[in-house]
Amino acid sequence: MLSSSSSMSFQDTVRALEWCEQGLRVLDQRRLPSAVEYQTFGSVRGVAEAISSMRVRGAPAIGIAAAYGVVLAARQRYRENPDTWKETIEADLAELAGSRPTAVNLFWALDRMRSEIRAIDGNPEPRLLQTARIIHDEDIAANRKMGELGASVLVGANGVLTHCNTGSLATGGYGTALGVVRSAYRQGVTRIFATETRPWLQGARLTVWELEQDGIPATLVADSAAAYLMKTGAIQWIAVGADRIAANGDTANKIGTYALAVAARHHGVKFMVVAPTSTIDWRTETGASIKIEEREQRELLNDYFLRPDSVITAWNPVFDVTPAELIDCIVTERGVVWNPDRQAMMALADAR
Amino acid sequence: MLSSSSSMSFQDTVRALEWCEQGLRVLDQRRLPSAVEYQTFGSVRGVAEAISSMRVRGAPAIGIAAAYGVVLAARQRYRENPDTWKETIEADLAELAGSRPTAVNLFWALDRMRSEIRAIDGNPEPRLLQTARIIHDEDIAANRKMGELGASVLVGANGVLTHCNTGSLATGGYGTALGVVRSAYRQGVTRIFATETRPWLQGARLTVWELEQDGIPATLVADSAAAYLMKTGAIQWIAVGADRIAANGDTANKIGTYALAVAARHHGVKFMVVAPTSTIDWRTETGASIKIEEREQRELLNDYFLRPDSVITAWNPVFDVTPAELIDCIVTERGVVWNPDRQAMMALADAR
Repeated sequence: MLSSSSSMSFQDTVRALEWCEQGLRVLDQRRLPSAVEYQTFGSVRGVAEAISSMRVRGAPAIGIAAAYGVVLAARQRYRENPDTWKETIEADLAELAGSRPTAVNLFWALDRMRSEIRAIDGNPEPRLLQTARIIHDEDIAANRKMGELGASVLVGANGVLTHCNTGSLATGGYGTALGVVRSAYRQGVTRIFATETRPWLQGARLTVWELEQDGIPATLVADSAAAYLMKTGAIQWIAVGADRIAANGDTANKIGTYALAVAARHHGVKFMVVAPTSTIDWRTETGASIKIEEREQRELLNDYFLRPDSVITAWNPVFDVTPAELIDCIVTERGVVWNPDRQAMMALADAR
Repeated sequence: MLSSSSSMSFQDTVRALEWCEQGLRVLDQRRLPSAVEYQTFGSVRGVAEAISSMRVRGAPAIGIAAAYGVVLAARQRYRENPDTWKETIEADLAELAGSRPTAVNLFWALDRMRSEIRAIDGNPEPRLLQTARIIHDEDIAANRKMGELGASVLVGANGVLTHCNTGSLATGGYGTALGVVRSAYRQGVTRIFATETRPWLQGARLTVWELEQDGIPATLVADSAAAYLMKTGAIQWIAVGADRIAANGDTANKIGTYALAVAARHHGVKFMVVAPTSTIDWRTETGASIKIEEREQRELLNDYFLRPDSVITAWNPVFDVTPAELIDCIVTERGVVWNPDRQAMMALADAR
């Protein structure tokens, strides 16, 4: 077990990202659960690579890592030339922005750091580091708040299913949907199910690992078994995270989320999206205009089929879009939006 | 490419089971597509083990393998004692019956061989081998017929999705649902999609391999991407096989079939089950009384979680039951049943 005494009461012992003197210390999520291995990245290029290679993953964690990446960029650019660093750092911000296309938190964090940069005189590192730490701490606080709000919605349920990994590994700590699962577990939602989440197996490798670190029992199912699980009556709720939420509540999230939402509606199982308001992209009217990242065929195809003369290909979208009509509620740190649509979502904008 | 000139016109070159002097020659499906490896089993115990270890898989192929297994059992029992072989062979029939619990074709094939045994005088091998060969040939002929019938239903479609492997590897040859896909491809259904089919990846390892041997282009998708694929409008039909069909049309098939049927209904995509009438269990009234095999947790869980003190478990049902209401048609060698229910299914019983 990893330990962090202050977090024990929350059953939240794992941290994927930690700032240290040399840079950003990152838990390599590609190797879990077989190996628990940390690497420290001392340059912005290293942080961008940690994101694009998926050592760091999960929309909130990507945003936080990018914020720390800006600190490292500023350290170097200021050292190189204290007069031009505000111009030269733009290339680093662009590199970070290009590391993963779908996660809106990434752009949100970079925008926030850029505003800070504009206001700085002198050595930027202390102030940018402070802002990055605030982004990180705010994320954990938001997650605890969402955990509380989401768990109050789940009162009376006894089974919940989650998809992908939305826990401490995907965020600053505690998690979004998995934070709700943690909080719900403490209040008696004891049957917790996690999907494998192909092709990266974030559920099978990360979610159940993270729950085990905190002593929370869980049952893993194949993605394709989730609908049948619903038919058995074992779950009353599904809780998932979000990579981007449009202004009308349409939600882009890990591939397979849409399939779960369709099956949930068919079975009368309720469907909850849990995400900080930083995940909401107010400039995106509906899910139709969200660009969906497609990853390499080799994530699905056996090497045998990767020959140039093969007639076999793969379609590997990483995300899908769940229309707001299939979502019963969106839980944010500012409150719960029931039956989301453009109008209902505006309550969150007003709460800013 | 494997070759079999007589089958070329059908784009059907693969054979998973072949009888030879020494016994049953089996293509080891666990090693595909990385290695194409055959093993010959000369005893009934070997054949039972080939079934339970999933070297042989697919309900029709299991039935055919079991029939050849009875030939090997009779060879040995008769050699041991020509007076008692009809009694002693019962232990072998029981062993074969216990090799996989869900496939009704297994019991069907054993019943047919047992009837033959009762009628035999003298050396049983020639007559039992003839019956096993007939079972094998009839299966291929039934598959060609189903291919033709199913393809005629798919006229006008351009995209079809299939699940698991129901091709030559799962049958005597040509396949059930994949036979329909082959036939439909020849008439212009050119967008063929296959699911990975976790946890065994029969789609990713077997279906696309088999299609490639016959030069039929196909696109692999994660199980969890199928619903999103339907949303894009790329497919008009889903064609799946069956491990057991109840008298009312409820269909047990590979885990994930039910999820596809639910998503198909949501999207207005049509859903077809393709299976020989030997898959129909007339004594099973509805899907509710079909026993669903659960396999080992280790098929889903990383070794890390297999420690006795782990709080993480897995639920690994191999099959699920799709209710007849979600099935648009069941294609058999005796004809197509639209909107299956108990009454509609009776047309097949009458056609016997």
